[in-house]
Amino acid sequence: MSDLRAEAEALDGKDELAAKREEFVLDETVYLDGNSLGALPANVPGRLAEVMTHEWGELRIRSWSESGWWTAPERIGDRIAPLVGAAPGQIVVGDSTSVNVFKALVAAVRIARDPGNPSGGRDEIVVDATTFPTDGYIAESAARLTGCRLIPVAPGDVPGVLGDRTAAVLLNHADYRTGRLHDLPGLTAAVHAAGAPVVWDLCHTAGALPVGLDEHGVDLAVGCTYKYLNGGPGSPAYLYVREALQPRFDSPLPGWNSHAEPFGMRAEFEAADGALRGRVGTPDILSMLALEASLDAWDGVSIDAVRAKSLALTDFFLRCVGAYVPTGRVESLTPAAHAERGSQVALRCEGAGDVMRRLIEQGVVGDFRAPDVLRFGFTPLYVSFGDAERAARILARTLS
Amino acid sequence: MSDLRAEAEALDGKDELAAKREEFVLDETVYLDGNSLGALPANVPGRLAEVMTHEWGELRIRSWSESGWWTAPERIGDRIAPLVGAAPGQIVVGDSTSVNVFKALVAAVRIARDPGNPSGGRDEIVVDATTFPTDGYIAESAARLTGCRLIPVAPGDVPGVLGDRTAAVLLNHADYRTGRLHDLPGLTAAVHAAGAPVVWDLCHTAGALPVGLDEHGVDLAVGCTYKYLNGGPGSPAYLYVREALQPRFDSPLPGWNSHAEPFGMRAEFEAADGALRGRVGTPDILSMLALEASLDAWDGVSIDAVRAKSLALTDFFLRCVGAYVPTGRVESLTPAAHAERGSQVALRCEGAGDVMRRLIEQGVVGDFRAPDVLRFGFTPLYVSFGDAERAARILARTLS
Repeated sequence: MSDLRAEAEALDGKDELAAKREEFVLDETVYLDGNSLGALPANVPGRLAEVMTHEWGELRIRSWSESGWWTAPERIGDRIAPLVGAAPGQIVVGDSTSVNVFKALVAAVRIARDPGNPSGGRDEIVVDATTFPTDGYIAESAARLTGCRLIPVAPGDVPGVLGDRTAAVLLNHADYRTGRLHDLPGLTAAVHAAGAPVVWDLCHTAGALPVGLDEHGVDLAVGCTYKYLNGGPGSPAYLYVREALQPRFDSPLPGWNSHAEPFGMRAEFEAADGALRGRVGTPDILSMLALEASLDAWDGVSIDAVRAKSLALTDFFLRCVGAYVPTGRVESLTPAAHAERGSQVALRCEGAGDVMRRLIEQGVVGDFRAPDVLRFGFTPLYVSFGDAERAARILARTLS
Repeated sequence: MSDLRAEAEALDGKDELAAKREEFVLDETVYLDGNSLGALPANVPGRLAEVMTHEWGELRIRSWSESGWWTAPERIGDRIAPLVGAAPGQIVVGDSTSVNVFKALVAAVRIARDPGNPSGGRDEIVVDATTFPTDGYIAESAARLTGCRLIPVAPGDVPGVLGDRTAAVLLNHADYRTGRLHDLPGLTAAVHAAGAPVVWDLCHTAGALPVGLDEHGVDLAVGCTYKYLNGGPGSPAYLYVREALQPRFDSPLPGWNSHAEPFGMRAEFEAADGALRGRVGTPDILSMLALEASLDAWDGVSIDAVRAKSLALTDFFLRCVGAYVPTGRVESLTPAAHAERGSQVALRCEGAGDVMRRLIEQGVVGDFRAPDVLRFGFTPLYVSFGDAERAARILARTLS
């Protein structure tokens, strides 16, 4: 056994999260794509069978009240809250991330332009130029509909473009491609100094590292639940609205579920209090209750322990890659500094598309991002150090 | 046995759709709330178990391509198409009805203002004043974001307010409260004569009667799938965009799923061709594939046969109510004329909330709409004439 294999075994032996792996359905595959679709938590099929056969099949319409369907968006939001450092009452689950980016960004512009805000003339939306594309497309639409100009810049350059004309800023907590972690506290403070609200996209960090939404005074945030939160394919996204801003959260999608009295069937809209303002239409109960069950995996888990294991895993994987892969065949795009690293490793590699295809054939599942990136996600709840060593070893074999 | 009970038995005996009831999970309850939440199709739990354990649990990320997850929105749209009189390639499934109303209405205003359209100055959105509230709230938001004024009028009065300033019209095919069916062909023609596009909300008609979207030249339509289509609680809604208008469909929610090359990860948005333009973010696969399975119930079913049975059921129920219920205790709000009737019966009744609670206790499930309406939905795939007679009988007993 090589030294690194022995080291992996030792690290797995003292991993306090190791037992969590048993709560997921996994096989001998090295699954390093949990940053795209989290693995199936073992309790989900049973729970969803009960939802279908008993709650829908037998109680039918009565389940909206008797089985707690109606309050699921805010109840599940409160389950996600501690994972992103939010007190209860600030998160609702529902719709896709893209739709939530739209709600958050239009609402942010309206907050910036609130009559109570002394700075008028705010007509610029600043957006991360390296963002996952959908955020940029939606930001462009939000700008068009609110009479703003879109200013795409690299996250590090954001402070330089902020000013009296800034209406809102949309940033990713981690770059989907390189895994680089952006400075959420510092950038939030910079946006606030310019008198504007900031929207953070947490898709690539929630469930992988501490976010600290309340602590850092984040205004609005969105995220998906199917990556590190393991909610299932296309499971509903979430929206965080800081409590102090909720009275001014003026949604561009004021559906009946965000009404103060949804069953009053009133012609005039009157927004509900609190996080419920972020709801829109009837929630998709099957996907939503699968997500709720999947969150049981977080019971008793400290997000600090998750972060510690995540960094140990990516450090160890990079060491294995350095030891096994012939020099010059891959180049890490993932920052070496822990403070700048999410929970994935991105390797630039010639012929990356073909290399990933061959890795998958050999049971190492990551993904390919055009034009030349191999992306490996490390989900601390179920990825082991042994997985990391094996993935590096098979990558080396594939490249030689 | 009373004459009406014998008649119910005879009608059920010659009902060509009677066998369909076996494809649903039902008990001795008289379930007349399928216009709110359709009953569980018996094949759905097994199909969804397979999706969870095999597609998500074993194939994981590979299922986006290998299990056809990625193309589900348009594939399922094509399954719904024949039920609403649409040729393939014009419907996508996803998001809630409210979100689809937003997409459709903003896109309709943009179509009305298209540079190729000779009539400028279009700044009025006409909306059904008796609409289900969410449509009105969303229309108000669409008006605000596109610089339009909202004109709420009763559907019958729509022709009188149309003109050169009409940017778009949003109408319900059937009134959610009274069950009144509106004149889709006539109103569509009137809106077209004013040079504007029309958006129809089919929530209360799709799956209950022929809609004829293509035949009547409807521009855009939306609908939910959890009522007469039995897709499950909060199952995804759909959006129809007439083929000829698709190149001009300019979505206010241009997510990465509506991009011409979604995995190209390009910073610039370029809309996909066809119905795919109506997609936004990652589709909620569990809810969506439950819907897909539920549509199997429509195999071999003619929507004309459904309509014939629907009218026979509501006629028969009204006759039973007339025969059993003491005069003056209820008043039907549902039009007597078949051409003006959807697939529900609404009865105005003093103390309706309490009456419905007592009906439910006795196994007759309809719903209550404030302030004084008892609402009974008749789903032709699984409601029998015996159910209708029994419901009227128990209603009469409750009221005497």
